[in-house]
Amino acid sequence: MNRKMIFRILGNIIMFEGAIMLLPFLVSLIYKEHTAIYFIITAAVAIAIGYILANLKTENRHIYAKEGFIIVALSWVVVSLVGALPFYISGEIPNYIDAFFETVSGFTTTGSTILNDIEALSRGMLFWRCFTHWIGGMGVLVFVLALIPKSEGQDMFLMKAEVPGPVVGKLVSKVHMTARILYGIYAFLTVIEIIFLLFGGMPLFDSIVHAFSTAGTGGYAIKNSSIAFYNSYYIDMVVTVFMLLFGINFNLYYLLLLKDFKQIFKSEELRWYILIIAVFTGIITVNTLGIYGNVSESFRYSIFQVASVITTTGFATTDFGMWPTLSQILLLLLMVVGACAGSTGGGMKISRIMILIKSAKCSIKKMVSPRSVTTIKIEGKPVDKQVLDFAYSYFVVYALIFFASVLLISFENLDIITTLTAPLTCLGNVGPGFGDLIGPVGNFSSLSSFSKIVLSFDMLAGRLELFPMILLFYSLKDCINVAREKVLKR
Amino acid sequence: MNRKMIFRILGNIIMFEGAIMLLPFLVSLIYKEHTAIYFIITAAVAIAIGYILANLKTENRHIYAKEGFIIVALSWVVVSLVGALPFYISGEIPNYIDAFFETVSGFTTTGSTILNDIEALSRGMLFWRCFTHWIGGMGVLVFVLALIPKSEGQDMFLMKAEVPGPVVGKLVSKVHMTARILYGIYAFLTVIEIIFLLFGGMPLFDSIVHAFSTAGTGGYAIKNSSIAFYNSYYIDMVVTVFMLLFGINFNLYYLLLLKDFKQIFKSEELRWYILIIAVFTGIITVNTLGIYGNVSESFRYSIFQVASVITTTGFATTDFGMWPTLSQILLLLLMVVGACAGSTGGGMKISRIMILIKSAKCSIKKMVSPRSVTTIKIEGKPVDKQVLDFAYSYFVVYALIFFASVLLISFENLDIITTLTAPLTCLGNVGPGFGDLIGPVGNFSSLSSFSKIVLSFDMLAGRLELFPMILLFYSLKDCINVAREKVLKR
Repeated sequence: MNRKMIFRILGNIIMFEGAIMLLPFLVSLIYKEHTAIYFIITAAVAIAIGYILANLKTENRHIYAKEGFIIVALSWVVVSLVGALPFYISGEIPNYIDAFFETVSGFTTTGSTILNDIEALSRGMLFWRCFTHWIGGMGVLVFVLALIPKSEGQDMFLMKAEVPGPVVGKLVSKVHMTARILYGIYAFLTVIEIIFLLFGGMPLFDSIVHAFSTAGTGGYAIKNSSIAFYNSYYIDMVVTVFMLLFGINFNLYYLLLLKDFKQIFKSEELRWYILIIAVFTGIITVNTLGIYGNVSESFRYSIFQVASVITTTGFATTDFGMWPTLSQILLLLLMVVGACAGSTGGGMKISRIMILIKSAKCSIKKMVSPRSVTTIKIEGKPVDKQVLDFAYSYFVVYALIFFASVLLISFENLDIITTLTAPLTCLGNVGPGFGDLIGPVGNFSSLSSFSKIVLSFDMLAGRLELFPMILLFYSLKDCINVAREKVLKR
Repeated sequence: MNRKMIFRILGNIIMFEGAIMLLPFLVSLIYKEHTAIYFIITAAVAIAIGYILANLKTENRHIYAKEGFIIVALSWVVVSLVGALPFYISGEIPNYIDAFFETVSGFTTTGSTILNDIEALSRGMLFWRCFTHWIGGMGVLVFVLALIPKSEGQDMFLMKAEVPGPVVGKLVSKVHMTARILYGIYAFLTVIEIIFLLFGGMPLFDSIVHAFSTAGTGGYAIKNSSIAFYNSYYIDMVVTVFMLLFGINFNLYYLLLLKDFKQIFKSEELRWYILIIAVFTGIITVNTLGIYGNVSESFRYSIFQVASVITTTGFATTDFGMWPTLSQILLLLLMVVGACAGSTGGGMKISRIMILIKSAKCSIKKMVSPRSVTTIKIEGKPVDKQVLDFAYSYFVVYALIFFASVLLISFENLDIITTLTAPLTCLGNVGPGFGDLIGPVGNFSSLSSFSKIVLSFDMLAGRLELFPMILLFYSLKDCINVAREKVLKR
């Protein structure tokens, strides 16, 4: 393993994080908050350490797939460790594990919080908290790639490991240009949302941070009652529409720029996405009619919650824990399904589920007529055997991580619903779970530090599509074994 | 599709069912119960109809894989429809859907009941109820195959579709001889258990029916408090040991007969089975120590429940709903895992899960070094690509059926735990679920008829390893389409 290259790239990432902390620093200055000092301290330390690491001397600059995965996993862990510092040293989140959980939840765009009183945070911290969503949504490394072009071969490894979905396509031949285009579209849509929110009478600060949270499909709000605080039909609808927009594969926006409408309409995943949203919203609207009294209100809450859960954002305008079981089960299903590949949303991704269902159909066909030749097609193109194998392994590994986490969380002796849905919501990067404790009106503060670390792992695993975190885990085991052998030899 | 051959084989099965109903008829006679009449009526009708169907004239006696699956699925549905008649016409289960649910639960060895007062049933009915477990455990068709040897090619299709597990091996070259050996071992073990139970002071009738329920890993008891009624450490242990024995692949017993011990020790699945039981029992024993006061008692209840759930029997000696969350989650996990392939137990089967985990490991390896050649081996032998594909499809279809059923059950608006675990316990053929309603001290009586039909489908799908029921479903759709086209043409 090329460790020096790993450190060099990590160094770049840490420097980059130090640099972006100047934004919350500025926000703190504007609001004349003393918290500004904590951002500038962290930024200075990060840039200094990052600079040293980034300038380690190495002849061999080549990295392989394995290093690519390890770099991605380590980057996200390190970025969260550093990103938690301002919360911790300012004392606004007095426990470091809590601060780490909150930052992981931010970068992975999960949106689960350990805060009992969000509104007690300073403006600077609230900004940083939501800004982690924005950075994490499109990808920490993609951002760095967009800024610092490196040699093409290794970039693709990094991009593949970080961008969600079974297949990653480059939009243009150069990876860093692809990254720039993606971030361009992302920033543009974010600005549009800010403008729309301002029109609804939302204050500027609130509009900016909520647009960050929507764009990253994260879900951090700055009010204890989330978006429900504004109590506005218009704002609910704006947020709904933008959540849904950010749940679409960004490649389609690029096609929109190229005016290649034909290709967009060909997208099977988009059609499934729209269909699922329409059907689920329809059923839940009818199902919750008894609670909200009229179709207009019940539609408002239903489509908001469907959008919030399928895109794995996690904003709340109502307590869906009070909904009928059918509606709750539909939301639970959406938590697992998630948004489109190549979007900022989490979950298993619709295209991956499409591949799995189509392949299962093929197998059944083959069972009936063993000699039949069947290929699985998505959007008219046959699915590569390797992509299919990875989709299957993803599914199995997802189930294994889920069960292992449930087992570890069950040591807390909480009720079964909480125990089952905490890992589910974290793996899917959704945010709220089910049950009184971690439901839309609850939070994760009462869990033990151990559970918070397990769930942080789940959030990272979910965001990075499982494998980088698994490989990091294995590498750590290898490292420990090597170290132990060295000790034993002495 | 060769419909006449399907009817012929179905005819044989119905005749066979009529014949075995003479056993509960005799039991009723012995106890001088008036219910005897209902068994003899059903038997007469079944034999008459079966005889007509079995003698349909057909030149083409060939059946293909598809017909094999359809025959198996239809047989199980028809056998349950007929088997429910004595319960219904005697009025002991006044609702036919309830009687059907109870019979499906019997034949599929699930053991979920709709009865509020089991002890109100007559001896004949109690006997029939447990006897369905014994027949269903090893397989309705395997029994018929053991009795009536047919041409080899088509028998193998039937056997493959009915015997659980990813791979079915013939013990000897002839299928009907294999079936006879299997039933021989099965009957022998059952008799041994009866003897052991008699030694514990259990009455003869109770010993016989409980041995049937254990052998089929079904779980129907004849007392409202299940095995807890006897309140005997010895009986608990006997039942525990026999549940575990019936959860082992029967091929291993055949190897035992051949004194091929080397081959037995080679069985990876057996080693996993023993390991899982030991570890889970250990953890639960410690975890429930606070409830039972001492290790001896807590071990007694822990190993009984672990055995009952991993073999998917479903007997109860305690209310595990009162256990700590960790223990409950472990049981939930065992519900999904299930017993060994080729045993009478349900669930996904340990060997299938072994294949999935090993394959996921391979995929991760391949991700790191794309050019590496990796083959999955079970017991030293490489796993066939097709077996692996089917294991994956099984997993996906399992998840799909599970979610679809949960969705359908959620219309009842029961609590989420009941909604989630009812399909899980039925798909796994376990018996009790979680929650007050369907937990070990509850039953399924309060569910709607619609839910009972959904769960009956789940039980059949679980017992027949999903695909036959899916194919039956598709064929029904085809039939309806054909019929509709015919109507439209007019």
